Amino acid sequence: MTIADLGEFGLIATLAAGLPRGERTVVGIGDDAAVLTAPDGRVVATMDLLLEGRHFRRDWSAPTDIGAKAAARNLADVAAMGAVPVALLVGFGAPGDLPLAWARDLVAGIADECSRVGATVVGGDTSAAESVLLAVSALGDLGGHDPVTRAGAQPGDVLAIAGVLGNSAAGLALLEAGLAGPASLIAAHRRPRPLYQAGPEAARLGATSMIDVSDGLLADVGHIAQASGVLIEIDTTLLPAGGDLAAAAAALERPSPLDWVLTGGEDHALAATFGPDVSLPPHWTVTGRVRAGLGVHVNGRVFTGQGGWNHFSC
Amino acid sequence: MTIADLGEFGLIATLAAGLPRGERTVVGIGDDAAVLTAPDGRVVATMDLLLEGRHFRRDWSAPTDIGAKAAARNLADVAAMGAVPVALLVGFGAPGDLPLAWARDLVAGIADECSRVGATVVGGDTSAAESVLLAVSALGDLGGHDPVTRAGAQPGDVLAIAGVLGNSAAGLALLEAGLAGPASLIAAHRRPRPLYQAGPEAARLGATSMIDVSDGLLADVGHIAQASGVLIEIDTTLLPAGGDLAAAAAALERPSPLDWVLTGGEDHALAATFGPDVSLPPHWTVTGRVRAGLGVHVNGRVFTGQGGWNHFSC
Repeated sequence: MTIADLGEFGLIATLAAGLPRGERTVVGIGDDAAVLTAPDGRVVATMDLLLEGRHFRRDWSAPTDIGAKAAARNLADVAAMGAVPVALLVGFGAPGDLPLAWARDLVAGIADECSRVGATVVGGDTSAAESVLLAVSALGDLGGHDPVTRAGAQPGDVLAIAGVLGNSAAGLALLEAGLAGPASLIAAHRRPRPLYQAGPEAARLGATSMIDVSDGLLADVGHIAQASGVLIEIDTTLLPAGGDLAAAAAALERPSPLDWVLTGGEDHALAATFGPDVSLPPHWTVTGRVRAGLGVHVNGRVFTGQGGWNHFSC
Repeated sequence: MTIADLGEFGLIATLAAGLPRGERTVVGIGDDAAVLTAPDGRVVATMDLLLEGRHFRRDWSAPTDIGAKAAARNLADVAAMGAVPVALLVGFGAPGDLPLAWARDLVAGIADECSRVGATVVGGDTSAAESVLLAVSALGDLGGHDPVTRAGAQPGDVLAIAGVLGNSAAGLALLEAGLAGPASLIAAHRRPRPLYQAGPEAARLGATSMIDVSDGLLADVGHIAQASGVLIEIDTTLLPAGGDLAAAAAALERPSPLDWVLTGGEDHALAATFGPDVSLPPHWTVTGRVRAGLGVHVNGRVFTGQGGWNHFSC
């Protein structure tokens, strides 16, 4: 059976039947709009587009993985403000001959990733389209804490990372080279596993700035540096880089996995700055510090390695 | 200059520069997510997709009109819950060779429609895409009133409409036939003008159910009937149908404009039910009543006119 066989309303009803209703849902799927409780008196909101052929390939990723990844991108953006993700809206476009099972698995992947953080799908839209496209909006709750923006880093702060870096980029490079392993990296590319809870945790610990690493560590730390008007120094010897990354670099005859770690996005690690006296839980790794100035330095100088990232400094 | 010349960050900065910041914006465009005040303690949220070639044509509509229409669809969904629209998130995909001026005009149209109701654009996403696509999420504030769903219509209620019906469908039919007028209908197709304020007004007046007429009056009143478990009778002699609609029907050699009025969507009129003793402002037109039963009747019987809508009754 294809999604065209069901029609729009049948498709929505079928997909919605697999979705749980959240505790915060006042009005869920099936009305003109959803209504959620917002006990904090503020709401965090973000949106991302994911397009077939640009953000994912149906021959490289299962629909559950594509759904989970689409959810993860948005949930991580909410977490990066210091908030708990609460709800998603999902816009889904696809060719009419798409198998219904594929659409069901996609939604199952979205729901599965949401369940990792207690969020639910509360609404969305469907449309016929030339290729599969997803537009996901996520809403979140600050729980009484101020949002952590990109703009609060201060000289003297430390830079810390929660989550992995470079695994997704290495997995993509392996797929592009037609290799099947290390499997952990290909799995990381297909389905990132952000540490969502580290976002609100950072807010409670007084993080001065935070960002979701989606464009690559240097680019995203550069966004903090720019927004905060500071210089951020990264010490690559402190960066997490597991043994599989080294194995992947060797398999692809690259001198080191550092370029993936510094410039790979899509793992959705969180990068945050904290005052120098903060005591961080062990899943936060201090990897640098904040100074007066502007830009990003790597190991004491403007990064000019593979990729030539000297535009991140001045 | 094209949007590819600017790159993603340059494009976002350029488009954001033309957007006002709303009073309710705590964190606006340029961070991982937006933050809005939600003084009601609840938030209304919806999303719609608009795809080139399916929901709009660049040769039939100016970018300002396409932007305004994309905003209107979502703002009307929020209003149909009885809420005041507050903010939009806009996902925008387009080919890299799209002129920057086109994108700017699109965003200007979105901002213009938002300004009609006091909402602002607070975030979104951009991506390269094969054709232009828009994903818009709208957030709204209930202002202390309960949301008006589709499920509360009661036997004895009246059905009332705020806004026009059929104008957009007639305008589309004129465009498809290569005709240039009546100009008011073509303008209505390019750029609907929903009466957003009628939504929260209906909530204050105690509306028992409400819907945004986007699929056509019969289909959407059918949704109320289904969700509420009632029969809704429509009297076509009470429906608003301006002189231009009759002129368009004559120009296209159709027996009457009634089919556009009953089945045309995209004008985003609001259809709501109210208790029989309510005193409605003049922009609400009573067009029917609610009885025990299930489905929709037109002039006392199941509608079997042009299009054959007998599946709306049982």
